Amino acid sequence: MSTARNFSTALRRARIPKPRSTGRPILTRVPSLATTTTSTTPARSFSITTPVNATKEIKYTTDAYPNVKRNPNFAEITEQDVTFFKELLGAPSAVVDGVTADAADDIAPFNSDWMRKYRGHTRLVLKPQSTEEVSKVLKYCNERKLAVVPQGGNTGLVGGSVPVFDEIVINTGRMNTIHSFDEASGVLVADAGVILEVADQYLAERGYLFPLDLGAKGSCHIGGNVATNAGGLRLLRYGSLHGTVLGVEAVLPDGTVVDALSTLRKNNTGYDLKQLFIGAEGTIGIVTKVSILCPPRPKAVNVAYFGLESYENVRRAFQEAKGQLSEILSAFELMDGRSQKLVHESTGNKYPLEGEYPFYCLVETSGSNADHDMEKLEAFLEHIMGEGIVADGVLAQDETQFQGIWRWREGITEALSHLGGTYKYDVSIPLPELYQLVEDCKARLTQMGFVGDDDSFPVRAVVGYGHMGDSNLHLNIAVRQYNKEVEAAIEPWVYEWIQQRQGSISAEHGLGLAKKEFIGYSQNETMVKLMKQLKELYDPNGIMNPYKYI
Amino acid sequence: MSTARNFSTALRRARIPKPRSTGRPILTRVPSLATTTTSTTPARSFSITTPVNATKEIKYTTDAYPNVKRNPNFAEITEQDVTFFKELLGAPSAVVDGVTADAADDIAPFNSDWMRKYRGHTRLVLKPQSTEEVSKVLKYCNERKLAVVPQGGNTGLVGGSVPVFDEIVINTGRMNTIHSFDEASGVLVADAGVILEVADQYLAERGYLFPLDLGAKGSCHIGGNVATNAGGLRLLRYGSLHGTVLGVEAVLPDGTVVDALSTLRKNNTGYDLKQLFIGAEGTIGIVTKVSILCPPRPKAVNVAYFGLESYENVRRAFQEAKGQLSEILSAFELMDGRSQKLVHESTGNKYPLEGEYPFYCLVETSGSNADHDMEKLEAFLEHIMGEGIVADGVLAQDETQFQGIWRWREGITEALSHLGGTYKYDVSIPLPELYQLVEDCKARLTQMGFVGDDDSFPVRAVVGYGHMGDSNLHLNIAVRQYNKEVEAAIEPWVYEWIQQRQGSISAEHGLGLAKKEFIGYSQNETMVKLMKQLKELYDPNGIMNPYKYI
Repeated sequence: MSTARNFSTALRRARIPKPRSTGRPILTRVPSLATTTTSTTPARSFSITTPVNATKEIKYTTDAYPNVKRNPNFAEITEQDVTFFKELLGAPSAVVDGVTADAADDIAPFNSDWMRKYRGHTRLVLKPQSTEEVSKVLKYCNERKLAVVPQGGNTGLVGGSVPVFDEIVINTGRMNTIHSFDEASGVLVADAGVILEVADQYLAERGYLFPLDLGAKGSCHIGGNVATNAGGLRLLRYGSLHGTVLGVEAVLPDGTVVDALSTLRKNNTGYDLKQLFIGAEGTIGIVTKVSILCPPRPKAVNVAYFGLESYENVRRAFQEAKGQLSEILSAFELMDGRSQKLVHESTGNKYPLEGEYPFYCLVETSGSNADHDMEKLEAFLEHIMGEGIVADGVLAQDETQFQGIWRWREGITEALSHLGGTYKYDVSIPLPELYQLVEDCKARLTQMGFVGDDDSFPVRAVVGYGHMGDSNLHLNIAVRQYNKEVEAAIEPWVYEWIQQRQGSISAEHGLGLAKKEFIGYSQNETMVKLMKQLKELYDPNGIMNPYKYI
Repeated sequence: MSTARNFSTALRRARIPKPRSTGRPILTRVPSLATTTTSTTPARSFSITTPVNATKEIKYTTDAYPNVKRNPNFAEITEQDVTFFKELLGAPSAVVDGVTADAADDIAPFNSDWMRKYRGHTRLVLKPQSTEEVSKVLKYCNERKLAVVPQGGNTGLVGGSVPVFDEIVINTGRMNTIHSFDEASGVLVADAGVILEVADQYLAERGYLFPLDLGAKGSCHIGGNVATNAGGLRLLRYGSLHGTVLGVEAVLPDGTVVDALSTLRKNNTGYDLKQLFIGAEGTIGIVTKVSILCPPRPKAVNVAYFGLESYENVRRAFQEAKGQLSEILSAFELMDGRSQKLVHESTGNKYPLEGEYPFYCLVETSGSNADHDMEKLEAFLEHIMGEGIVADGVLAQDETQFQGIWRWREGITEALSHLGGTYKYDVSIPLPELYQLVEDCKARLTQMGFVGDDDSFPVRAVVGYGHMGDSNLHLNIAVRQYNKEVEAAIEPWVYEWIQQRQGSISAEHGLGLAKKEFIGYSQNETMVKLMKQLKELYDPNGIMNPYKYI
């Protein structure tokens, strides 16, 4: 980062020269590029990194949540069931059988999550390869009342894709074909199990972009993205999956294939049923195919990184970015000083800026003309520097610096994972009070004597960062180990705080197991009743992802 | 239009000079501006114009569709019902009572559509002013089994908002309050009965834009827009209502108020129920409030108009526009030669271009920097002229010309209405074959002897135009009067043609009464079954907008 351009003084003297346009998108960040940077951290796919406490056993969810009881209506898996599935799916790789054999090691990765927070007791993992196979599996399970957990890349943050008891895992990993891409319309049709980064690379080769990007892109599946209504880094620019997903193919528990796989941008012929599967977290069916509208890949991408003295200034900077960068603004990310200190300590990397600041933000532009974009960006920088809205900043001059700056934002999750456990709250709050939650939470836990630098204190740090452009804050409370007293101090206080401000207790991560009890803080009774009615309609036996969501 | 800049030769000599930026949005086209142009047509609100055959009586829908029978389960309205509604709603203007009094003239506008194609027998119109009133009205109707038709601006094209028999009209006209607008997030919350143009003007004063624009904006209600999932002129840029609508408040037939009026951009706490009301055409509930994400109003807007020699060239021009104008492209409209000739004949206006061409298109850009936009537009124009993709074109130099060019696109509907009746098909077809439907339809009707210039032929013209950017074609067959033989020649042929190409028989106008029989051409049996299941769930008595949709 040492050569990244510091524009704080340069801008006061003269306009900074325009960097050369590479003429190609520089957005594509593949893991191999990481070696050319000063960073020692692995590239973006956080889900494949191993937390430092990996040697410890993960606590069973049933021990962590003793109040959750197995539904006695569900059948137990028998040898006959396993035989049926093996015959149905054929390939040996399609069934991980811990019922008739000892397969503990093979099953372990499907039984727990990457945060090491949830762990189930499943003894059977099925990997169907086609919609027809999914249909037959579900129909059988529904008739036998065998509970199931749909699972994609298993990169979620709320325990939604991990079994609790002995639910059968239905993993989409073997459904990974890209079926079609139409260059005239930009519509991609692909299996649920296609990895997000693979889909994006495929599109990159054709001059297009997947309209969703997030830290776990190297592992997560697009079906899982749709099922959880993933938001990510560029929702600000490309909008939510409710708008970009044109079609969904899904299977209901009774085996019905819902073929809503339209590739049309406009199709007003009936209720838009596919929308129900977007964000349903696998509780009413399994998404098997997705059709999605992809924008042309931007020809020029720039990223700048700022230090700011107050949250008020971050808000002003965002307002200016919206007004001045307008159609080319593709990300506006907020990181507090503590979060950046953690990345610094974890990676050993030199800070992008000389001084330390209480707030940082990352601004990205994506456009079709490098010169125009740079002119807009310069005018914006000149303005926010001139007005004293930002204290200092750097602008990436090449792809290495581009990657490096993004790592200061995307490295937070991993830096936190090195500290022990993390209580994660992914919330939406109206912008004026967005960061106040972090301040209030820190004050509360400090006052209660939980926060400190040595091992006698359970809490190491309270940090806030997130997608400012979407009013989406990630509140993270890093603890030395998961601790019920700390948890009781945070919950339900945090949910009440959010409810009072009409925010959402889950902006983009969903409810899963972690938040299922708290839906009432963001949805009124009528809404919850209507949701239960739909769940009952589509899944009367309740076999789909039980103990989660609703 | 005589001073609009013709760039066909200029561009071959030198780059055309940049027009002065006005520094303010020029997108706002208010009716008063129409008087400054050479056009003699009224401004954009087509629904308030009077077709030439206005003196003729409109045929009752029950006569035009004798197979549609009144559902005998529905109660007949009694004097007691009227008394109840009058007491409930209070204001005399809230009830148009044709039951206990003679109110034929007052009721007539609610009983028929602006195309003069559908006419019902309602004797009662209710205009509640609050969600609570809507709830009480619906609960009463549901218990009494009185059928209802939700109605907004009544500007639809498929007869969806007009009663067939004696259904009670529930008009949203008196629910017209804008509740809030947050300048930080761009989120507008407003009643269902707010007129689209009123909402957009309100936003214009605050530097924002309603993310939907369509010809009927001067009359249509935003609740009706949401209920019909209106598409319009700039979906290409701002996306569908499924993405931009953040929240909906709606009332179910049993009086339940569904408060899904979130103002958050991200909120993953349960099934996204509001989506069901977007495009449901009032068949499961009445939308009472809408929360919608509005983009900043563009600071610069440009529009160009081209003549092209073939549909193949229109496709090439669109591909180039997507690539070169990218993030500033806000509309790409297709008009065939016949449609422009009709506008010419109807308005008497001079053509924008010297010669006549088989195809025309309109390209609009919207951006935040007038100089940058013009540079991109010039490069695009230079390229498509140089390559011979377009034969000739003009670029609007001021707001009058901007309005004038748009009127060549938006005047088609009115020009058609002067010819008698029009069979309208609003369809989505993959781009390569989009215009082929017009050619095939014209050939078919000509071969069958229906098309000709004198009154002995029922068909005057077969024209095609539409939103190329969304693969959305409007096929219009102008007839001297509605004619069953012609209709039989078109339907179901046109639907079969579309089905073979996996298109949609209703891209943006919905199904209503006109298309309800044909849903099977765009949705498979399973989907129709699932839709019926939802209808049954929310409206077991079937009182919501019966005889339509599903």
